[in-house]
Amino acid sequence: MKTIIDNLNWRYATKKFDSSKKVSQENLETLLEVLRLTPSSYGLQPYKFLIIENPEVREKLKEKSWGQTQITDASHLIVLCSYIDVNETHIDAHITNTASTRGMEVENLKGYSDFMKNTISQLDTERKQIWNSKQAYIALGQLLHACATMKIDATPMEGYDPAGYDEVLGLKEKNLHASVVCPIGYRSEEDATQHFAKVRKSKEDLIEFI
Amino acid sequence: MKTIIDNLNWRYATKKFDSSKKVSQENLETLLEVLRLTPSSYGLQPYKFLIIENPEVREKLKEKSWGQTQITDASHLIVLCSYIDVNETHIDAHITNTASTRGMEVENLKGYSDFMKNTISQLDTERKQIWNSKQAYIALGQLLHACATMKIDATPMEGYDPAGYDEVLGLKEKNLHASVVCPIGYRSEEDATQHFAKVRKSKEDLIEFI
Repeated sequence: MKTIIDNLNWRYATKKFDSSKKVSQENLETLLEVLRLTPSSYGLQPYKFLIIENPEVREKLKEKSWGQTQITDASHLIVLCSYIDVNETHIDAHITNTASTRGMEVENLKGYSDFMKNTISQLDTERKQIWNSKQAYIALGQLLHACATMKIDATPMEGYDPAGYDEVLGLKEKNLHASVVCPIGYRSEEDATQHFAKVRKSKEDLIEFI
Repeated sequence: MKTIIDNLNWRYATKKFDSSKKVSQENLETLLEVLRLTPSSYGLQPYKFLIIENPEVREKLKEKSWGQTQITDASHLIVLCSYIDVNETHIDAHITNTASTRGMEVENLKGYSDFMKNTISQLDTERKQIWNSKQAYIALGQLLHACATMKIDATPMEGYDPAGYDEVLGLKEKNLHASVVCPIGYRSEEDATQHFAKVRKSKEDLIEFI
């Protein structure tokens, strides 16, 4: 399992991408499937992943990201959006999907459906948005790991203006919110940060056995 | 890259673990290193990972987890805790670690330190706790992916009483909060859910190209 650790040590938050290098369609498909297979609370997948290729849209998003060049230079920009509100419609769709995937009757899933509906009805919109956003972060973690395995560079970014992203991408009217952003591609040889030693807490500081 | 997808399809939220099967020390060390290498906002790693082995503590935690048997039957129980408050002490420690890891002078990192301190000073405690908690979810995503690669079963769980966990583990006085829980180990042959088809949204529902 040394490979896993070597891969995770290889990765770093890329500051400068080589804009001439593109992630192949095959590799992109793998990463999208990694995102799709990510587990989420109740399996609701309360998110949507936007893959931004359009250069003009990326220019606009760069302006909403304090001018950080990864937004435009990376091969692809992934915006991990989560739903603002998760409601009975989402649960009904999930139940329909479960029934169809597993060859069951929707009626037999009523107890599970009612349980989920009861749970979410107790959350206000802000709490739902936080909950949904956390699920998107699980997807981010899986994505970063898969990128490292595939030697694709990735930079998780929270440094952007979410309201600006909403505006450029028209997210609010789709009940979506930009939870976290991740450009992917290949590091530029000129990016000096790739040579910096990785800074992490010691095992002793971070992990406790009970 | 078919292997990655095969591995992620192999994994599922294990309902019943085989309590006789233990994750080896070597594999556990790999998973802990995966957690340690997880990227986080500003590299602050605002979390701590508790590995619960003690059977009595696990019995108590099961009571705070609606009696779900994974808590006691799994090989190891990982409680991903995040800091409630993140403050200047954390940033100073991070700066000291950065300077020492990279052979730099602390003084040369003052601009970066001030920037981080200014950012967190604008967040109230609730927003900091949410921010910290999201970082723990990145670690969860990486952990789940690594477990799948290593054919170790894992069950991400939000269905527990966080206040009860705080109480049993004395988290609050350590400025910690149980963000998410993940028992790891090996599936029981008796767990029927392992044979259920995986339910996920279609690529068309989940992903949009722009």
